[in-house]
Amino acid sequence: MFISIEGGDGTGKSTQAQMLKLRLEQAGRDVLALREPGGTPIGDELRRWLKGPGTSNPWAELFLFEAARAELVQEVIRPALERGTAVVIDRFADSSTAYQGYGRGLPLVQVEALNRTATGGLVPDLTVLLDMPPGAALARLAETGGGTGRVDPAAERRFEEEPMAFHDRVMNGFRQLAAREPGRWLVVDATLPEAQIADAIWERVRGLPGASAG
Amino acid sequence: MFISIEGGDGTGKSTQAQMLKLRLEQAGRDVLALREPGGTPIGDELRRWLKGPGTSNPWAELFLFEAARAELVQEVIRPALERGTAVVIDRFADSSTAYQGYGRGLPLVQVEALNRTATGGLVPDLTVLLDMPPGAALARLAETGGGTGRVDPAAERRFEEEPMAFHDRVMNGFRQLAAREPGRWLVVDATLPEAQIADAIWERVRGLPGASAG
Repeated sequence: MFISIEGGDGTGKSTQAQMLKLRLEQAGRDVLALREPGGTPIGDELRRWLKGPGTSNPWAELFLFEAARAELVQEVIRPALERGTAVVIDRFADSSTAYQGYGRGLPLVQVEALNRTATGGLVPDLTVLLDMPPGAALARLAETGGGTGRVDPAAERRFEEEPMAFHDRVMNGFRQLAAREPGRWLVVDATLPEAQIADAIWERVRGLPGASAG
Repeated sequence: MFISIEGGDGTGKSTQAQMLKLRLEQAGRDVLALREPGGTPIGDELRRWLKGPGTSNPWAELFLFEAARAELVQEVIRPALERGTAVVIDRFADSSTAYQGYGRGLPLVQVEALNRTATGGLVPDLTVLLDMPPGAALARLAETGGGTGRVDPAAERRFEEEPMAFHDRVMNGFRQLAAREPGRWLVVDATLPEAQIADAIWERVRGLPGASAG
């Protein structure tokens, strides 16, 4: 079982990933919670780098994410799935399609081809879209650190480095991806209270094959 | 005018790139000498990284090189060519085809597709292959630092980290690429004295359009 959580910054992805991990564990599953980029030496390095100096070149940015993704899939995600561990990940390939494709304007067909190369064709069984207007997400980042309870001024600054039109394109991109593959995506209103969101996600996850160990 | 110098480590690429730069400058050209990865903040970072901890995942390795290449082409090489500066580069996209394709066994068609994406279709006017049996190149690295006059134990160590069969596949790959596009490639026997190699390269370069400013 491989589940990705998608959405803009400040929509509560990491909170929901943690809550889903706990519920799956309560149902007797081994669970590995990951985030992109991260989870490998190269992923952690790229995370520091992309959140620091970064690059103004959208292709270079995309290739860096794909490098981290290729390593994470091959070294961590596939081995976990093969030993029967469920994997819950905060962002996956759809984030590249939404951010570098819809957001930065790289051709979607090329972004998705790179995604397929990097993932070796691995696609989540379920992808949750935490749907929230970017303006609301920014307000949450400023007030509560995106629902983590920790205010993160750096996250707020990064969000504000891009024009609101960029965040609108990204969110619109996520919605289009979800509409294209309704069988894989679950769209949840991320302005709801977090326990209610967690319930909606769990309702869908418990129906997946292998949601509990029993 | 865009010229790449290719070949294994220890074949004298950086020496020949510098000698070619000087000859072009003597002919009145502005010349920019570059190496891959490098030449941009991300390229320099990746150079340190790939020569240090690196990654054992060939796809991740390829994506990192493509990231550095995309940035270098867009931010440095294209602007230089557009203002009429000649560019001489120590390694370019063919190195990915030779190392990650022929050497590590990634499918050539996918490696070349990534190369085209990263370069935006930019192909050198001339690519020089410094052809030398890998055993001879290793001996040169050990004795003279690959013809640079500086012994570089790290370069020798990196070379020896890969089995000789890997270096043989890489050199064979370069030869196949050269055979496939004889109009673009010049294959030079890199065991010859360096001045003789420089003469052979110059003989070809001076016949290119725009080899001198006059």
